[in-house]
Amino acid sequence: MTENDLLNNLARRFPTLPPVVLGIGDDGALLQLPADAQLVTVTDMLLDGVHFRLDEIDPALAGRKAVAVNLSDLAAMASRPIAAFISLAIPRNLSQTRPGWLERLYDGIEELSRQYHFTVAGGDTNAWNGPFAINVCLLGVGITAHVPLRRDAMPGDLLYVTGALGGSLNHGRHLSFQPRFDAIRWLVDNVRLHALMDLSDGLATDLPRMMLASNTGAVILQESIPVHADVSAGLSAAARLNAALSDGEDFELLFSISAEEAEKLGKAPRELSFIPIGRVTQDRAILLQDASGHTRPLPAGGWQHGI
Amino acid sequence: MTENDLLNNLARRFPTLPPVVLGIGDDGALLQLPADAQLVTVTDMLLDGVHFRLDEIDPALAGRKAVAVNLSDLAAMASRPIAAFISLAIPRNLSQTRPGWLERLYDGIEELSRQYHFTVAGGDTNAWNGPFAINVCLLGVGITAHVPLRRDAMPGDLLYVTGALGGSLNHGRHLSFQPRFDAIRWLVDNVRLHALMDLSDGLATDLPRMMLASNTGAVILQESIPVHADVSAGLSAAARLNAALSDGEDFELLFSISAEEAEKLGKAPRELSFIPIGRVTQDRAILLQDASGHTRPLPAGGWQHGI
Repeated sequence: MTENDLLNNLARRFPTLPPVVLGIGDDGALLQLPADAQLVTVTDMLLDGVHFRLDEIDPALAGRKAVAVNLSDLAAMASRPIAAFISLAIPRNLSQTRPGWLERLYDGIEELSRQYHFTVAGGDTNAWNGPFAINVCLLGVGITAHVPLRRDAMPGDLLYVTGALGGSLNHGRHLSFQPRFDAIRWLVDNVRLHALMDLSDGLATDLPRMMLASNTGAVILQESIPVHADVSAGLSAAARLNAALSDGEDFELLFSISAEEAEKLGKAPRELSFIPIGRVTQDRAILLQDASGHTRPLPAGGWQHGI
Repeated sequence: MTENDLLNNLARRFPTLPPVVLGIGDDGALLQLPADAQLVTVTDMLLDGVHFRLDEIDPALAGRKAVAVNLSDLAAMASRPIAAFISLAIPRNLSQTRPGWLERLYDGIEELSRQYHFTVAGGDTNAWNGPFAINVCLLGVGITAHVPLRRDAMPGDLLYVTGALGGSLNHGRHLSFQPRFDAIRWLVDNVRLHALMDLSDGLATDLPRMMLASNTGAVILQESIPVHADVSAGLSAAARLNAALSDGEDFELLFSISAEEAEKLGKAPRELSFIPIGRVTQDRAILLQDASGHTRPLPAGGWQHGI
């Protein structure tokens, strides 16, 4: 297959939806945004051997994950997706050794583009002597005039997560998760959100990022951290807690609201879960508090790429 | 260096310029575009061993090229850059074996961000066991209400290129070229442009893309094709012609205008060069015409990635 053939296939597979005016096939894509739109842009690169193992999974899941992690970032910016740009580095012999592989990859991408109504509006595809890499750049527009940011946590706020944590990588949840658009849509309509982010590297890594951005600290209640059923029940309590804090790739939302707003969460539909895990403090320490009230520093952990 | 350290360095290095409201450091970047802005998005992924050889060049040139090829795409969409998103896949040992390497890469990117006044507003960085890869996604806004596209060539139009072709890879021009913003700014202000694209894969590959998109053909005058001084004078005339048609990575603009507009090009500043190379035809063939008036099909060639 040549580059021209691929472009023709993609242009047929991915229809151009507003506000995209011109999609695949020219030097760039053209979008006509509504006046006063808040444009949000996110990007993530996924690599064979780091974020998935290509020889162990359906390529549709690799394509799906590459888009889904970006969708999670958009949800964390209280935005809905409008256009994706997908770049691929493909091992030179892959279309011979694994025919149909590229089509399966795009099947996984197409599934999400239909579910969330965005256009795959461009990209770049190259063959090389390296492993498979995929970069997705996703454009969205805010669903609220004031996009809640990491820096918006206020001392006294309560902290919540939208679901249980840990065990995502071992159980394949990192390939199949649903970005939390349902949760953020309801929250934006019903609650005055302060800080917001998604949990990609584990609460132990991501929570300090929110606290750093907002010049605050936090006290997390150890007993309130929701440990996912994917974390083995056979582990010690400490190991289970550590998995919930540090495994990463949960793609749940972490947010803060003032204590006065907390009551409103009780009116949420049953299928949404908002789990209180602690509170924001003026003191910049980040502490874990056990059932007896003793605190210790939140153990550093979770996933950070060494560079 | 950790991912957090890198983000802090980048946030300091790349200031947030309007219309970017929020740059590096959150789940995504936030932009507030002027009303009626035409948003243009381009993306290109560059790979070690395909687009440059990392062990042979200054990393600043790799970073520069990765952004410059995207700038060329924006020029070909009659747009100016506003925000770049840069994803890197970095060989795991690189910061040990080549200290300062990542900083040099960003030096090359910073040079262009200052020259063309755009914000590096986000990205993603991962270490892996593969070679170096860089993806740039660049957002721009149209400098004209009607962005000229590949499909806009009309039978009877004259075809022009903005500079000489060939020899780019052998002489390093592919690392140091200037995207043709000066040319496109003057053209947009002074001429009614029809079709427009940039030449990245060689005229023999790119011209047929324009003709296909606009349902036209073309007759190219062999003698008028400008052969770059980078093409060896020692080659045969046929080999020199072939180099100009097929070497690729020229990053000149190719455009069409009606014959009535041609005269206006004579008023362009001396530093801009607009070289007529042929004409657009209703007949869909793409022909090369020699000095004696004989025509033959334009030889297929130039660079297409096999996938």
